[in-house]
Amino acid sequence: MKKSFGGMVLVYTMPVWVIGTYGKDGKPNAMTAAAGMVCCRKPPCIGIGLREATYTYHNLLEKEAFTVNIPSEVYTKEADYFGMVTGRKEDKFAATGLTPVRSDLVDAPFIEEFPVLLECKLIHSMELGSHTLFIGQIEDVKAEETILGENGLPEIEKLKPFVYDIGNTLYHGIGPCLGKAYSLGKGFRI
Amino acid sequence: MKKSFGGMVLVYTMPVWVIGTYGKDGKPNAMTAAAGMVCCRKPPCIGIGLREATYTYHNLLEKEAFTVNIPSEVYTKEADYFGMVTGRKEDKFAATGLTPVRSDLVDAPFIEEFPVLLECKLIHSMELGSHTLFIGQIEDVKAEETILGENGLPEIEKLKPFVYDIGNTLYHGIGPCLGKAYSLGKGFRI
Repeated sequence: MKKSFGGMVLVYTMPVWVIGTYGKDGKPNAMTAAAGMVCCRKPPCIGIGLREATYTYHNLLEKEAFTVNIPSEVYTKEADYFGMVTGRKEDKFAATGLTPVRSDLVDAPFIEEFPVLLECKLIHSMELGSHTLFIGQIEDVKAEETILGENGLPEIEKLKPFVYDIGNTLYHGIGPCLGKAYSLGKGFRI
Repeated sequence: MKKSFGGMVLVYTMPVWVIGTYGKDGKPNAMTAAAGMVCCRKPPCIGIGLREATYTYHNLLEKEAFTVNIPSEVYTKEADYFGMVTGRKEDKFAATGLTPVRSDLVDAPFIEEFPVLLECKLIHSMELGSHTLFIGQIEDVKAEETILGENGLPEIEKLKPFVYDIGNTLYHGIGPCLGKAYSLGKGFRI
């Protein structure tokens, strides 16, 4: 038996990403967003949903650039803080001790200590209501060598990203591997 | 030291969702997508990125409706199969034994056995390149009573959704709770 919740964003899983932008005055800011997705492979695009009230919204429109910084579990507290306060009032880098580094490719800062970052140029935006959807083209992905596996790609078990449970406002880590895609399902082929 | 991968969609975490649509002929179809996100709270909106080559792409444009079905870990094989083959050639419901049920709210089928479903009406689409981004307004969310917690909301540990590691094409389960959002980060406030 299913219970109806009405029209709401009760969706699983949501990622936890920290968006890096510069303000008009060049001040680096970081804001946590869970409304994010990959939306195209060629060109490689990523989408994030932001409220106009956020500092990041205006920075992003001004600079037409942002970074997506993927924290590992050890930065759960920092990521939570980045989503709690506005960069208009607090210097979030000073508060956390994390290091903003200027990207060579886009006009946005990334977080040195986080293991994966995407450098993105704004290519589209779409106002939807409470949130505006921003689409960025991924210019480069960079990952710490310590999280790479033997095949040279990031290993999710070393990266240890985490997800957001929007209903209960809880963070959860990543669990065990359940199997290989494009393989597990072969048994059903008629 | 960070390694550069160039512009590609190496992003963590991605959800695993099964999109339900009807074909022109009324045939129900299910397709797995990992390019998906919440993109607005009011109205509640969800985005999915689809290639034109898919059956679901055309069904969605025709019916202007879809469901997002969130599988639990026990349906990893079925979800993988739904992403491996096209509904033009195989009847995916017959092959898996899962049950398509007509939504009362939108012109799309949902999967009876999956614990959470979202019934969505197409409100926007944006062609980006290899993929088109479809934005659906969430008309209703329904969840199995067996996965609800004491507060009446889904518990992610009962739902057991899983995520997709796009680099290594692996599925991973959800791990332990890391703490409460809007709370863990309080220690950093200046």
